[in-house]
Amino acid sequence: MVVVLDKNVADKQIENVIKHLEDFGFAVHKSTGVEQIVLGAIGVKPDFDIRKVKILDGVAEVYRITEPFKLASRSFKKENTEIKIKDVTIGSNEVVVFAGPCSVESEKQIFTIAEIVFKSGAKVLRGGAFKPRTSPYAFQGLGEDGLKLLRRAGDKFNLLVITEVMEISHIKLIEEYTDIFQIGARNMQNFSLLREIGKASKPVMLKRGLAATVEDWLMSAEYILSNGNMNVMLCERGIRTFETYTRNTFDLSAIPVVHKRSHLPVVADPSHATGLRDKVLPMARAAVAAGADALMVEVHHDPENALSDGPQALLPDQFYEMMRQIKLIAEVIGRKI
Amino acid sequence: MVVVLDKNVADKQIENVIKHLEDFGFAVHKSTGVEQIVLGAIGVKPDFDIRKVKILDGVAEVYRITEPFKLASRSFKKENTEIKIKDVTIGSNEVVVFAGPCSVESEKQIFTIAEIVFKSGAKVLRGGAFKPRTSPYAFQGLGEDGLKLLRRAGDKFNLLVITEVMEISHIKLIEEYTDIFQIGARNMQNFSLLREIGKASKPVMLKRGLAATVEDWLMSAEYILSNGNMNVMLCERGIRTFETYTRNTFDLSAIPVVHKRSHLPVVADPSHATGLRDKVLPMARAAVAAGADALMVEVHHDPENALSDGPQALLPDQFYEMMRQIKLIAEVIGRKI
Amino acid sequence: MVVVLDKNVADKQIENVIKHLEDFGFAVHKSTGVEQIVLGAIGVKPDFDIRKVKILDGVAEVYRITEPFKLASRSFKKENTEIKIKDVTIGSNEVVVFAGPCSVESEKQIFTIAEIVFKSGAKVLRGGAFKPRTSPYAFQGLGEDGLKLLRRAGDKFNLLVITEVMEISHIKLIEEYTDIFQIGARNMQNFSLLREIGKASKPVMLKRGLAATVEDWLMSAEYILSNGNMNVMLCERGIRTFETYTRNTFDLSAIPVVHKRSHLPVVADPSHATGLRDKVLPMARAAVAAGADALMVEVHHDPENALSDGPQALLPDQFYEMMRQIKLIAEVIGRKI
Amino acid sequence: MVVVLDKNVADKQIENVIKHLEDFGFAVHKSTGVEQIVLGAIGVKPDFDIRKVKILDGVAEVYRITEPFKLASRSFKKENTEIKIKDVTIGSNEVVVFAGPCSVESEKQIFTIAEIVFKSGAKVLRGGAFKPRTSPYAFQGLGEDGLKLLRRAGDKFNLLVITEVMEISHIKLIEEYTDIFQIGARNMQNFSLLREIGKASKPVMLKRGLAATVEDWLMSAEYILSNGNMNVMLCERGIRTFETYTRNTFDLSAIPVVHKRSHLPVVADPSHATGLRDKVLPMARAAVAAGADALMVEVHHDPENALSDGPQALLPDQFYEMMRQIKLIAEVIGRKI
Repeated sequence: MVVVLDKNVADKQIENVIKHLEDFGFAVHKSTGVEQIVLGAIGVKPDFDIRKVKILDGVAEVYRITEPFKLASRSFKKENTEIKIKDVTIGSNEVVVFAGPCSVESEKQIFTIAEIVFKSGAKVLRGGAFKPRTSPYAFQGLGEDGLKLLRRAGDKFNLLVITEVMEISHIKLIEEYTDIFQIGARNMQNFSLLREIGKASKPVMLKRGLAATVEDWLMSAEYILSNGNMNVMLCERGIRTFETYTRNTFDLSAIPVVHKRSHLPVVADPSHATGLRDKVLPMARAAVAAGADALMVEVHHDPENALSDGPQALLPDQFYEMMRQIKLIAEVIGRKI
Repeated sequence: MVVVLDKNVADKQIENVIKHLEDFGFAVHKSTGVEQIVLGAIGVKPDFDIRKVKILDGVAEVYRITEPFKLASRSFKKENTEIKIKDVTIGSNEVVVFAGPCSVESEKQIFTIAEIVFKSGAKVLRGGAFKPRTSPYAFQGLGEDGLKLLRRAGDKFNLLVITEVMEISHIKLIEEYTDIFQIGARNMQNFSLLREIGKASKPVMLKRGLAATVEDWLMSAEYILSNGNMNVMLCERGIRTFETYTRNTFDLSAIPVVHKRSHLPVVADPSHATGLRDKVLPMARAAVAAGADALMVEVHHDPENALSDGPQALLPDQFYEMMRQIKLIAEVIGRKI
Repeated sequence: MVVVLDKNVADKQIENVIKHLEDFGFAVHKSTGVEQIVLGAIGVKPDFDIRKVKILDGVAEVYRITEPFKLASRSFKKENTEIKIKDVTIGSNEVVVFAGPCSVESEKQIFTIAEIVFKSGAKVLRGGAFKPRTSPYAFQGLGEDGLKLLRRAGDKFNLLVITEVMEISHIKLIEEYTDIFQIGARNMQNFSLLREIGKASKPVMLKRGLAATVEDWLMSAEYILSNGNMNVMLCERGIRTFETYTRNTFDLSAIPVVHKRSHLPVVADPSHATGLRDKVLPMARAAVAAGADALMVEVHHDPENALSDGPQALLPDQFYEMMRQIKLIAEVIGRKI
Repeated sequence: MVVVLDKNVADKQIENVIKHLEDFGFAVHKSTGVEQIVLGAIGVKPDFDIRKVKILDGVAEVYRITEPFKLASRSFKKENTEIKIKDVTIGSNEVVVFAGPCSVESEKQIFTIAEIVFKSGAKVLRGGAFKPRTSPYAFQGLGEDGLKLLRRAGDKFNLLVITEVMEISHIKLIEEYTDIFQIGARNMQNFSLLREIGKASKPVMLKRGLAATVEDWLMSAEYILSNGNMNVMLCERGIRTFETYTRNTFDLSAIPVVHKRSHLPVVADPSHATGLRDKVLPMARAAVAAGADALMVEVHHDPENALSDGPQALLPDQFYEMMRQIKLIAEVIGRKI
C-alpha cells in the first residue's frame, strides 16, 4: 500500500499516520520527495480496507498496490485454466459454442433445438429450468421437469448441458442433471450462493453483473475458487450504460483485459448483450475475433412462441450461418471450433 | 402498447403485424397520420415482452404504455404506505432515523453504540450479523450470536432493530430477532430471496442495486408485494457511475421520483452512498431536504477498530450534530424527527 | 406523439390536455382502452419539447414516436452513403484503414510513419496538428506547420489525410491541407463548430462523445447535414462507463445499430477506445468483424518518444500484422481491404 | 509516481524500467517488499502520461500520486476563492441565487421575469442569448438583441446578469453585456474556448460535462486559470447515468468533494439536473443543505409558451416558495441568502 501525504503535512500528523500503519500490522518506510512525502506500507492483507488510512489527518491519497484477488490472478497461476468436461475442453485452442433456448419449455421444443445445436457442431446445450425474471408475473421455468428434459436432450445428441442455479437449496438437485452450473448476472454478488457453489464438484460459469467492474467480477470468482472449486469460467454478457438503443453495452474489451489479469477462460454471450436477434451475428463474430474462449447464444426453432427471450434467439438458419462465419474467423487467429 | 410502423411500410406488413398482435391477445386499432401509421394495442399483460413486436417486419418502434409494476404503483394505491412497528411509523410525517454500526462485533460494542443511538433520539438500531463482503477473506459477521446481541441491545434501549438477510435459509432465524429485514443492494435482484421474504411477516427494507433503475427497483419491490408482504420500504444508497472520487453516486432525485410513482416510503443511506465519513453530514442534510422518509447512517464509537466499514461511520459527536441539524431541516418542510 | 393519460384522469383534465395539444398545432385523436386513455397527436415538429405535455395534469407518459433526426436517418435515405475522395470510397464494400501518429511531431517522424502506412496498404494518413488535450500543460500540436508536414507526407505516399479541427477560426486554414476534417469526441456537441463545418466543402468524420447516446450522435450529424455538408462519417471511439481497467468502453454494438438507423458510414477507433497498445489488435479485429466501414488506428515507429498518446500506438510490426489479420476477417464477411 | 512491478519480474526488466524512468527525468528509489518491488519516481511533470510506464515489461501498475491540476487545487490555495462582482460575493457565507428564463425571448418576457427575480431577493439574472440546442431545428436564441435586453433588464432591477458563450468569436461581444460568462456542459472540454475565456476579464461559471469526472472538471477549470482568469466558479448540473426517469442524475456529493479538493465556489443547477419542474424544489433544498455556494434555477411567468425548456421552469409562486425554504435551510448551516 502506498500512502501519499498532504503537501503541507505536519510532523505530528506524519508520526500519527505511521503509528496507525504499524498498528494495522504494516512495515512502513518513508520517502521524502521535493513536493510530497510518500509512505510505503508493506504487508497488506487482502481484505484490508484502505479507507481506514484515507481518513487519517494529513493523508492525501492511498493506493492498494496489490490486486485484491489472488487465486483468480495471472500472477498466481501463469498457465490458462483449461476446464475438461468429458471430451470438451474450455479454455484451450478450441472455441466452444454453447447454444439452445432461453428456457426449456417442453420435450418437443428442447429436443428439436438440441438436434439443431448438434448438427451445427456446437458442443454444449443451454436451457433454463429455474429462470430469474425481472417481473414476478413472468414465466419462471419448468423446474425439475425442465432439468430432466434438458439432460435427456443433451444425452441423446451427445451434448454437454449448462443451466442456471438461483438458490442454494437447488444446488444438489441441479448438480444431478447439469454439466456446468450457470450463475446469472443478477446473482454475481450473491455471496452466499457463490460460497456454496464453491463447494460443488461441477464447473461454474459466472456471468458478469450489470454494474460489475472486471475487478468485482474476479473477486466473485475468488469466492468460488477459495471454497475449492477451481473450474470457473467467466461470461461477459453486457454491462449497463446510458445507451438505450441496445439492451446492454457488450464490453468486448473485457476479453483481452481478463486474459491479461487472470488465467480463467472467458465466454461471450452476444444474445443477452444486445437483446435483439439481428445484432447477434455481428457481435458473435466480434467476440470470437476479440479472443473469446467460448460463445453462448440463444437459438429457437419457433421464437415467436418462446416463453422467454424469443426476440433475441437466432433462427436455425441464422445460427448455422453464424457457425460457418465464426469458424473462419477462429482460423484467422489460429483457433478452431 | 403503441406500435409505430415504418414510414414506407407495405400493406402486407401492416396486416402481418396486426395479425400477430391479435394472436398475442390484443385488441388493435389503427390510426393513419400524415407521415406514419400507429397501431394501438389494448390489453397488454404485465409480463408481455415488447421485443416480440419490435422484431416484426415493418415495425419502427414499440412503446409499452403501462408501467410494468402494479402493486408498487401510485395508481394502484393513492395514499402513502405507512409502516407501523410498535410505536414507530415509517412513511408518516416523522423522519425516522436508523443508526448503528456496520457489523455487530461484540457485546460491549453494540451496547455502547445502542446507547448513543438512543440518546440521539433515533428510533432504530442497525447492525449486520451476516455480512455480504466483496472479498471472501473479509470478516463475514458473527451470525446468530450477532443477532442475539443486536436484539438485546435494542430491547435495553427501546430501539427497533434492522439487520440484513442474505439467504433463504436464514429468514426464519432472523425473523425471530429482527423488526425489519434488510435486503442488500447486491441481492436486489436475487429473485428467489425476494419471493421468500415476500412470504415473511415482518417489514422489509429493499436497497437499490448499484445499477438498478427506479423501474427495476420497483419491480423488485413488486416481487415482495405480490407474495403478500405489503410492508416494503425502499432504500437509496448510491448508484454506480463513472465518478471515482466518491464510492457511489448518491441519487437523491430518486426520492421525489419514487414518491411520485409509488406509495412506498423511501429511506436514504448517505454512509454507503459516499463511503467516507466527512461526506455523511452534508448528504444526510440533503437527503432530509429532498424528502426522505427515513435516514440510515453508520455510527461507531471506535471506528478505527471497526471490523467493517469503519471509515464511513460517524463518530458519536458528529452523529449528535447531524441529528441536531436534520431536525431543523425537517421542520422547514413541515416534518419532525 | 402518443400521450398516455393517468388511470383515474378527470374529464376536465382530458379536455385540457386535448386543448393544449391543439394549441401546439397537433391533430388529436383519442382512443379509450379498458384501463387507460391514449391520445395520438399527429404532426409533431422535430424540435417539439415533449416535456411540455408531460407536465400537464392527468398525463402519465408521453412518447415522441418519430426520430428527432431526419437527414441522418435510414428512412430519409435508404442507400448507404458512399463518400468518394479521390480514388478512395468510404462506406462501400472496402474497409478503409486510417493510420498514423496521434500528433504530427516533425518532418522525419511523419514521413517515416507515412511510409509505414503506405506499405501496409492503408489509404488514409492521420495526424493531429491542433490537439485537444485534457491538461493545459500538455503538448498542443505544431499548428499550421503540422498541417503542411501532414499534407506533404500524404502527397509523397499517395495517401489521403485526416486531421482534427477544434475551432471555427481554423476551418479555412485546415481545409487547404486536409482531405477529411475530424471533429473530436469532446467537441461532438460544440454546435457552433458543427454548424460551420456543415458549410465546409470537405468530408467530416464526427467522433462520438464520451457520454453520447447513438441518438445524440446522429443529432450532431444532423447539424452538419442540415447545413449542407452531406459527406459525414461517424466514428465510434469508446464511451465512458464505470469500468476502470480500460480507458473507455468500446461500444462495438453501435456499429450495427447505426447501420440500421442511418445511412452514414461508421469508422471504429480501437486506439482511443482502449488506450493501451496490447488491446488494439484484438479490438481492431472485432471492429471489422462487427461491420465497421473503416478503421482508424495509431501507429508510431518510436512511441516511447511520442509527444502524445505513445502508449496506445502500435509498433510498425504490430500494425502490419493487424493489417494481415483484418484482411482475412473482412473476407469472411464478403468485404475487402 | 509509484510503479509497482510484477511479482515475478526479472532483474533485467527492473533495470530497464529504472532506466526509462531516469530518461523521463525522474529520480527513482526502489523498495523491496516481501511480495513485490515498488519504485518511487519523484519529479513527475503535470502532463506526464503514466501509460508510458504502464506498458513497460515487468510493470504491474502505475499510480500518479499528484493531482494533475495545480492552480485549481486546495493545496495550491488554502482559502476559498471569493468572487466579488459589484455588491455580490460568490463563495462567501452568502448563498447567492441566479434565476431567470432559459432563453431571453422578448422585452416583455425578460422584464417581467427580472422583476420576479428581483422581488424574490435573488441577485443574478440568467438568460440565454446564444443557445446550444441538441436539434439544429430548435430555437437558437435572439443573439445580440437578447444580450441587450438581458443587460437592460438586469440594470433596471439592479441584478447582475449571466449568459452563455458558445464560441470564441462571441467573447468580446458578450463581455460588453454580461457580468458572468457561462460555459455550458457540452463545451466543458472545448479547450480552445476555455483558453480564450481564460484571457477575458470577467468571471466564468463552468458547467460540469455530462460525463465529466470531478477531476476532468477541475482540469478544465485549470485551462481557464492558467490563462490568467482566476474568477472561476463551477456548476454541478447533473451527470449522465443509466437512469431514465430523470433527465440527468444530480450529483450533489460533488459539492463537498469539490470543496475538499479545490478552493473554487460551486453553483448547483437543479433545473437542468432534473429537467422537470416538480423536482426542482426538493433538489434546490437539497443542494443548499449539501453546501452549494450558489443556486441557479429557471423561472418563467408563462412556461407553456417558453421557446425553450419551459417544462423545467418554476412558476413565480413556486420560485418564491423555494426562496423562502432555502433561506431557512441556509440558516441551519450558518449561512444566509
